[in-house]
Amino acid sequence: MRIGVLGTGMVGQTIAGKLVALGHEVMMGSRSAANEQAREWVAASGSSASQGTFAEAAVFGELLFNCTAGAGSLDALRSAHSDDLAHKILIDVANPLDFSQGMPPSLLVVNTDSLGEQIQRAFPDAKVVKALNTINCAVMVDPARIPGEHDIFLAGDDDAAKQAVRDLLQSFGWAADRIIDLGDITAARATEMYLPLWLRLMGELQTGDFNIKVVR
Amino acid sequence: MRIGVLGTGMVGQTIAGKLVALGHEVMMGSRSAANEQAREWVAASGSSASQGTFAEAAVFGELLFNCTAGAGSLDALRSAHSDDLAHKILIDVANPLDFSQGMPPSLLVVNTDSLGEQIQRAFPDAKVVKALNTINCAVMVDPARIPGEHDIFLAGDDDAAKQAVRDLLQSFGWAADRIIDLGDITAARATEMYLPLWLRLMGELQTGDFNIKVVR
Repeated sequence: MRIGVLGTGMVGQTIAGKLVALGHEVMMGSRSAANEQAREWVAASGSSASQGTFAEAAVFGELLFNCTAGAGSLDALRSAHSDDLAHKILIDVANPLDFSQGMPPSLLVVNTDSLGEQIQRAFPDAKVVKALNTINCAVMVDPARIPGEHDIFLAGDDDAAKQAVRDLLQSFGWAADRIIDLGDITAARATEMYLPLWLRLMGELQTGDFNIKVVR
Repeated sequence: MRIGVLGTGMVGQTIAGKLVALGHEVMMGSRSAANEQAREWVAASGSSASQGTFAEAAVFGELLFNCTAGAGSLDALRSAHSDDLAHKILIDVANPLDFSQGMPPSLLVVNTDSLGEQIQRAFPDAKVVKALNTINCAVMVDPARIPGEHDIFLAGDDDAAKQAVRDLLQSFGWAADRIIDLGDITAARATEMYLPLWLRLMGELQTGDFNIKVVR
């Protein structure tokens, strides 16, 4: 599958790397078509990897990942043409973290709205699925690095899109019964608002290699 | 120990009942000293149970539980005298849920503040410990009703108070290593902001009998 990964940071590189390893063709998108981090990633990743602007990656991908920093996600996405996102699945991995007041960050949008909803409103014809934003990127693409069962969450308005994301996440190594569908895109509030707990736990455990399991 | 439980709802009744069963003397506090729910609870609970106003329960207890609805917690506590809370441990179980816009509720205070912090600021001489607000009340007092390991969290500024709460929670049935100290009272933001995820999970699982385990 042709996939556009927007964002050249650690999350984008990790997701893009996993997608190439799984046999997908991946274009990494960034503000500048000559982005140095993307260039290094392409050089290290073989012929299935390419780079371009956000807009070019949005054209390229049949499916898109938003791996930009949450504070800049809407700007990054708006540099693409709305038509190029229409009817495409957009997996929103970002969290709207505000680091401007120091650590731990607060959230830029919260409570009665979420970044996932903002993106869905900005691109009403895209199929936004919030996913993977409750774990660090190493765990996103390799759930087995944490022993035992642990869970991730989906939120989105389009059931077929969520099923496709579920299939893709299973190819990442996530067991079907560890992927919990929380409902429509407003459930992005729930997973984004989990971040303060994740950040506190990271501080306490001194590692990002953890996740939660829903026990019933 | 003499314990004041502020609040006559399901959470207050469940906590107060557990405390009586464990051999504590418990006064249930409410707006009115003649509160009907408190009267029924006292009648059913034997000679260790009593009722009074919020102010009377605050005087009575060597340790206090805030089990009032979060939206009214500050008003309820302010009807007690500040001196009667001074130097006492106040376990804040409440969540600042706003049901005024329908379900699911949002939070009345969020992101850069929390109910736990508001209470600590209102009563600077009390030792506020945020705890148990991430599970339903049946699970609070009977963790074994959910099979397997699962975790709860502490937040508060006073380490000795957190140790005392940890001991009390162990008497409720919580294993020492399933009680995670998240740090100072600002960590109440993290556990209160987890509520939207708890509420979505409750909707999805169709039960409140669940919890999360931190897997590492």
